[in-house]
Amino acid sequence: MAIITLTTDFGQKDHFVGAIKGTILSNLPEIDIVDISHKISPFHIQECAYILKNVYSAFPKGTVHIIGVDSELSPENEHLVVQVDGHFFVGANNGVMSLIASEVEPEKIMEINIPQTEVSSFAELHVFVPVACHIARGGKLEVIGRPFDGLKILKEFQPRITNDGQSIVGNIIYIDNYGNVITNIQKSLFEAYRNGRDFEIIARTNKIKAIHNTYNGIINFNLGKPQRKGPGDALALFNSAGFVELAIYKSDLNSVGGASTLLGLNYRDTVTINFL
Amino acid sequence: MAIITLTTDFGQKDHFVGAIKGTILSNLPEIDIVDISHKISPFHIQECAYILKNVYSAFPKGTVHIIGVDSELSPENEHLVVQVDGHFFVGANNGVMSLIASEVEPEKIMEINIPQTEVSSFAELHVFVPVACHIARGGKLEVIGRPFDGLKILKEFQPRITNDGQSIVGNIIYIDNYGNVITNIQKSLFEAYRNGRDFEIIARTNKIKAIHNTYNGIINFNLGKPQRKGPGDALALFNSAGFVELAIYKSDLNSVGGASTLLGLNYRDTVTINFL
Amino acid sequence: MAIITLTTDFGQKDHFVGAIKGTILSNLPEIDIVDISHKISPFHIQECAYILKNVYSAFPKGTVHIIGVDSELSPENEHLVVQVDGHFFVGANNGVMSLIASEVEPEKIMEINIPQTEVSSFAELHVFVPVACHIARGGKLEVIGRPFDGLKILKEFQPRITNDGQSIVGNIIYIDNYGNVITNIQKSLFEAYRNGRDFEIIARTNKIKAIHNTYNGIINFNLGKPQRKGPGDALALFNSAGFVELAIYKSDLNSVGGASTLLGLNYRDTVTINFL
Repeated sequence: MAIITLTTDFGQKDHFVGAIKGTILSNLPEIDIVDISHKISPFHIQECAYILKNVYSAFPKGTVHIIGVDSELSPENEHLVVQVDGHFFVGANNGVMSLIASEVEPEKIMEINIPQTEVSSFAELHVFVPVACHIARGGKLEVIGRPFDGLKILKEFQPRITNDGQSIVGNIIYIDNYGNVITNIQKSLFEAYRNGRDFEIIARTNKIKAIHNTYNGIINFNLGKPQRKGPGDALALFNSAGFVELAIYKSDLNSVGGASTLLGLNYRDTVTINFL
Repeated sequence: MAIITLTTDFGQKDHFVGAIKGTILSNLPEIDIVDISHKISPFHIQECAYILKNVYSAFPKGTVHIIGVDSELSPENEHLVVQVDGHFFVGANNGVMSLIASEVEPEKIMEINIPQTEVSSFAELHVFVPVACHIARGGKLEVIGRPFDGLKILKEFQPRITNDGQSIVGNIIYIDNYGNVITNIQKSLFEAYRNGRDFEIIARTNKIKAIHNTYNGIINFNLGKPQRKGPGDALALFNSAGFVELAIYKSDLNSVGGASTLLGLNYRDTVTINFL
Repeated sequence: MAIITLTTDFGQKDHFVGAIKGTILSNLPEIDIVDISHKISPFHIQECAYILKNVYSAFPKGTVHIIGVDSELSPENEHLVVQVDGHFFVGANNGVMSLIASEVEPEKIMEINIPQTEVSSFAELHVFVPVACHIARGGKLEVIGRPFDGLKILKEFQPRITNDGQSIVGNIIYIDNYGNVITNIQKSLFEAYRNGRDFEIIARTNKIKAIHNTYNGIINFNLGKPQRKGPGDALALFNSAGFVELAIYKSDLNSVGGASTLLGLNYRDTVTINFL
């Protein structure tokens, strides 16, 4: 039996998530349902895609991922099942699918076409759940839809190489629970252009001259605590998702602040790496 | 094996929910435990009932629903199991049970009467969990209690028909994750009084003249985006729970605001529908 | 098959928790994964320990508890498995283990020593998950590590007996979802020193002269509601975890406020009990 995951902007207070789980369990008592996130910012396609891209491959192939963000059916927002890398994404054609499949060619794209009594404002429950249960049971995609070739393309901002290869100009694509800001500059891109040169990372008025592989990378453990860097110091690292991330060591967004608040960085802001 | 659901005002940080789950799993290793919500506003009976009423029937009959809101035993707050529509609600006699059973006559109401070493401030763990496990195992209600006929009646505000049937005066009973405000005016009531007339919905200084079946209902997809309504526009719809809801199209309460903040509407505020 | 629990400061929006669950389920499809809390204040060892100490024993012996707070490997922060009371705690040597084991001698302390391709900033996924799965499968600790005797000792503030046994001076160690403040003064300590004397609890400018066993303890149910105490009144009780707690009856931190805001009490503040 496949796993069904849920990624939505429903929050965790309302009855929506419970209704979905109850309905799935009424159909498939043995299924594992895993919450990925219900705290996507409402209608935020890019945030939803960032989270799903970073997590889906941790699940076994065959997993069905319900995407409950901006799901209402319209002439411009078809309901789709997109098969990528052996995983099934059930959601709307609002761009999230193209972002998830931006680096892996989808194996199959189907427009959902199941009998509905009426158009619903709760598509996740009335459309995505029966489709997900069908797939989790091993049902064929052809039963619930037909091939579709109008995938809406939503492009993430891409980092640009400027200044004759002297600079990479990226953007902040996500801010995490600690206030750490994640850029769209991948380690592989950075390495491809670096050629052994020194560099500086410029984000607003902040300048950082090293990229570590861990947060602890800024700490010189040979020094005593008063002499070395520590909580409150800014750093850059290649994070576990492979992106350049700017962080404050051991930050707490709710008390002392994190990189987003202390460095004054917001979603979409520019981060530049200059090679010297 | 039945499912056990949890609806509480415990929040998601403290150890309370984990203690309940660990204890249930220690007793019933094979059980499915489903979180419905732990973010009920503290002691908010109406909010709790609104969520449970909208979700319980998504679960299979026989499901046991633990209600962890205002649960401490007192001479005025007995511990009950109420069987409604084949579902078992385990909670206190604080009014939530009468709200859940406001439209369906309970099949059985039992006062819990199990041996306790001492009165506890954590009734959910010490009383509701063993009772829920007993029921989930298929145990008889008669073993854990005795028939009870003193159900505390808590009435939701009911919409009133005024002005010789020219107006329906309702109230806001819930505000959801998007800031959408849900009234207590059901579609069936609206239809019963409308008689084909035009109407206007008045909420504070806002006036809305249509009720859609989906959020997309306000969009004329034949027009280009600049010409048509879209994000930020107010609308009314019959929501998936069957109530008249006022919404802002694609709102985000944390950034641009939602219907509650943008239309200035709070819990309990009046919403009037005038037939013209 | 053992249960695996998760206690982290990851929050509930990011992909971290989903990645952990997907990886565990890819390895152990039949496992039960239980979220204890993902809302630990970032890097807050004491908060994490308070929650885990109050909840772990609700789970069956053999349960594996992953602790995802301040987990990055460093020369000063080894990765450990600590077996306490038949439970397995997988986390870092940052003090949390000594707090959890402050009253029960650990049965075994192992330093994790598994082959890793590189040091990771996501130790929970890359180290703790494979170790937890190994233990959950019934694997021996000796396979994944070696005995360790350098447990970092982090002491909670301990209540002090002062004034020739006339006073107990404690501190606030936790503030819960309702704003109730929990002190480090245990019921057993209070009883050991009380000797039948009257007492007063002093917290800032507040004075309380009774400790109840339940929140309802302040209510005299023989009086009518206008004559008796009720919502908004302050009280002290021995809470379900066995500590002296100061509370506001039926408080809501998000609206009227709770003990922390209404009594002006913060984490670490002093609470004194004077025997009279």
